[in-house]
Amino acid sequence: MAIYIALLHYPVYDRQERVTATALTTLDVHDVARLARTYGLKGFYVVTPLRSQQTLARRLIDHWVTGRGAAYNPTRMEALSLVRIADNLEAVLAGIRQEEGGQAKTIATTARPHAGARSYEEMNKLLHKGGDASYLILLGTGWGLTREVTEEADYVLEPIEGKGYNHLSVRTAAAIILDRLLGGVGR
Amino acid sequence: MAIYIALLHYPVYDRQERVTATALTTLDVHDVARLARTYGLKGFYVVTPLRSQQTLARRLIDHWVTGRGAAYNPTRMEALSLVRIADNLEAVLAGIRQEEGGQAKTIATTARPHAGARSYEEMNKLLHKGGDASYLILLGTGWGLTREVTEEADYVLEPIEGKGYNHLSVRTAAAIILDRLLGGVGR
Repeated sequence: MAIYIALLHYPVYDRQERVTATALTTLDVHDVARLARTYGLKGFYVVTPLRSQQTLARRLIDHWVTGRGAAYNPTRMEALSLVRIADNLEAVLAGIRQEEGGQAKTIATTARPHAGARSYEEMNKLLHKGGDASYLILLGTGWGLTREVTEEADYVLEPIEGKGYNHLSVRTAAAIILDRLLGGVGR
Repeated sequence: MAIYIALLHYPVYDRQERVTATALTTLDVHDVARLARTYGLKGFYVVTPLRSQQTLARRLIDHWVTGRGAAYNPTRMEALSLVRIADNLEAVLAGIRQEEGGQAKTIATTARPHAGARSYEEMNKLLHKGGDASYLILLGTGWGLTREVTEEADYVLEPIEGKGYNHLSVRTAAAIILDRLLGGVGR
């Protein structure tokens, strides 16, 4: 079983719930790559259709994987080696299909209530069953994944329950989600 | 029971394991404040002896709590209202003593193995027992809390176990630690 994660910069909502493409936050790329390495994911896709943003992501990755950064901080190289860049979700799925020989099941994440959302416990059990399936966890930037992406996903994870507060950064939300799905013993 | 968290910029190690004061990362202040709000903590101390860094932290907080940011993003205001600034760990403990009427028990976090480190399960149970005690979770920046801070803590948490990789950002580590200690049902 292979598990992948994707950070979508498009299509996501902006503050006014209009569909937009967000700018890359380089720190998110570092943080999610380090999380992907920590939890044994097979790959981390940075998804943006914007060429300028792809160039920025590529420069960052090259610096740490083959450039000066690799000698300066080998553990960062190890994490950033997992990063791939894709134009859109279709391209991510095509990439995984090529690598794994089958279609990945998608797991959308959201901070909004969603009818039929799965509990962390249920998804944790599913992911620990193993088998041949590949999974792709979808993270949204901005004000979250569009309804279309969420509705087309194979699974939608329930929001992270806070004490009446539901406004984490995508970096820290990704940390909690991966730990609940894949971390620790007996989770 | 009241739980606090502190992000220490001094005393921490640098790459060469020399004791240093790190610079403030404004994003860490945002992320940890949002986590503190999510998990119902009573306060979040940003600890630095450097006046310039305290000024930066103060400006950031003022912008979001009483300045223009408050209207722009009220949820951010809610989170950043929890932030206090302190010169050192002693000042944090004195502040909590004043607020809670008793000494807080400190819980150090580390990415290194530590003899006598407590499991998340044990600390989760302790924190869910309630009672009168206050707790202060200590996070280190740079290359981590100094041995002195760790050894003087009442409890040391075991490192986050990754698949042979132990290099998370302090933001994402804080997210995982708080979720394991305080999040979800039955954790």
